[in-house]
Amino acid sequence: MSKLINVALLGVGTVGGGVYGILEENQAKISANIKKSTGKDVQIKVKKILDKDDSRKAEFADGVLTTNFDEIANDEDIKIIVELIGGDTVAPKYIKESIAKGKNVVTANKLAIAKAKGEFENLAKEYNVEFCYEASVGGTIPVIRVIKESLEANNIIEISGIVNGTTNFILSAMTKEGKSYSDVLKVAQELGFAEADPTSDVEGYDPAYKMSILGSLAFDKYPKDENISTKGITELTLDDIEKAKADNKVIKLIGKTYLKGDDVIVEVAPTLVDKEEALANVNGAENAISIKCDNAGVVVLQGQGAGSRPTASAVVSDIINITKKLI
Amino acid sequence: MSKLINVALLGVGTVGGGVYGILEENQAKISANIKKSTGKDVQIKVKKILDKDDSRKAEFADGVLTTNFDEIANDEDIKIIVELIGGDTVAPKYIKESIAKGKNVVTANKLAIAKAKGEFENLAKEYNVEFCYEASVGGTIPVIRVIKESLEANNIIEISGIVNGTTNFILSAMTKEGKSYSDVLKVAQELGFAEADPTSDVEGYDPAYKMSILGSLAFDKYPKDENISTKGITELTLDDIEKAKADNKVIKLIGKTYLKGDDVIVEVAPTLVDKEEALANVNGAENAISIKCDNAGVVVLQGQGAGSRPTASAVVSDIINITKKLI
Repeated sequence: MSKLINVALLGVGTVGGGVYGILEENQAKISANIKKSTGKDVQIKVKKILDKDDSRKAEFADGVLTTNFDEIANDEDIKIIVELIGGDTVAPKYIKESIAKGKNVVTANKLAIAKAKGEFENLAKEYNVEFCYEASVGGTIPVIRVIKESLEANNIIEISGIVNGTTNFILSAMTKEGKSYSDVLKVAQELGFAEADPTSDVEGYDPAYKMSILGSLAFDKYPKDENISTKGITELTLDDIEKAKADNKVIKLIGKTYLKGDDVIVEVAPTLVDKEEALANVNGAENAISIKCDNAGVVVLQGQGAGSRPTASAVVSDIINITKKLI
Repeated sequence: MSKLINVALLGVGTVGGGVYGILEENQAKISANIKKSTGKDVQIKVKKILDKDDSRKAEFADGVLTTNFDEIANDEDIKIIVELIGGDTVAPKYIKESIAKGKNVVTANKLAIAKAKGEFENLAKEYNVEFCYEASVGGTIPVIRVIKESLEANNIIEISGIVNGTTNFILSAMTKEGKSYSDVLKVAQELGFAEADPTSDVEGYDPAYKMSILGSLAFDKYPKDENISTKGITELTLDDIEKAKADNKVIKLIGKTYLKGDDVIVEVAPTLVDKEEALANVNGAENAISIKCDNAGVVVLQGQGAGSRPTASAVVSDIINITKKLI
């Protein structure tokens, strides 16, 4: 008989909807993959979904949608809680309460993780549960697991990359179509590639959160606030772009993290990249992350940095990996 | 007190020497990484090395080098045997005997794995040991673990890529320097990027072995021999290269695997790649693998496809992951 692993989703927007969709549509494939690696029969099921009101109740089976977090936190059948509300209003509180209730937690919330500077990871250790966040950096790109499980024979020297799809979309369009920053931003907002308030992206805060998370994994601690510097793309002109072109380069918003003495440094700034380099050819909403190691050399990972299904794929990979440990 | 995991190396050439070097030099880092994820103290040590004769005895501590495989297979302290002899003369026999002795096995031997078509994996299941081969495809690129652990929420549609460094080096040099195939091959041989007998690389057999392994992971079975087609680069002329250039394309030796009905198909052939595509900008001995999925979209992994330390980094990642399961 197949064992049941019950999951709860906090939030069912773009990414949450994707997670729900994947778990429904690829249920048989997921169970087969888990059986292949563990030999065990298991089924992963969304038992509860938290939403801010009950207007979407009809989309899900009876009793699945709730507006009451405690109903989820106190449900002993629920082993994994997936926080996809984002931001730092209620999400950090829900993450901490879930862990304290002995739940394994999955999140894509880079802002909350970067600001908590290790608090969630420590709490998870204290309560002996898993805290996983593959989708918090680079969308579908499996960078967290690659650092944790594939590069452990290495000292990591530097991680750099394009980890913000919105600004990469804007820079790519400015470069290819010769349009100004403000014109392209308007188009990006219309197409859903930029938010109504794009500050966190265009000022470089979002990529700084992501590089802080990667820095913490590579160097075992989060950067201090004074060691995080961000410069966005709002002041870039078409003239800058053209000058780069003439020099056989392109301008990309590059995030970096490295160790300086004992300090983890995070830097985000528009950067000239040689056209022959891998990062120069990462266009539109794509992300790419380059990891420089003492033994492995430079490993580059590339994929969709955002979007419902790509990001949800990373979330579900965390759910699957926790499930393997639970069964 | 720290637990000791004893490892044996079969072969101590380019990759074996790299594995030995990493385990010696990064011992503290590796133990720290394992402690971080498991909470346990462990030390990984090379207890025995098999070499064809004892001429290199002085390079290692007393009693480490042996010419007798049975001394390793019968040593109950040795938990992991790392086969780095390569080829299909003695290596497959050693792999099978090691598994049958209850040893966990790590190998980089794509030829042996692809020809055995699942025999090693099945034997490992029967004896309840691990059989790991991250370094068999793409050198340092963590493609095996990404397929097994990061993309499990997906149906994989197609895997394609540049998985042979020798031919990519030759094609890159023909493209950049305008030299003929035979001239570049000579240089590649002098620089150690091509073997004295380059047949397996330049005829596309090596990339076909690698795509067979990736196909088996993505589609749960190895391709039948009649479903593997290979075309190498020996007939490519500078004229072909120039024609591609004029069309804003480059020629790459691309390997592919996909499902056609119930059959796993593997194809290797020189292919026109648009200059804007990620694979077009993978030059020299670099490898890159593109995995197309139903949910994650296209994930591209890039890195050093060969070389002592890069390949050894992948081998050691397998040793570490097995160690985590043993402690």
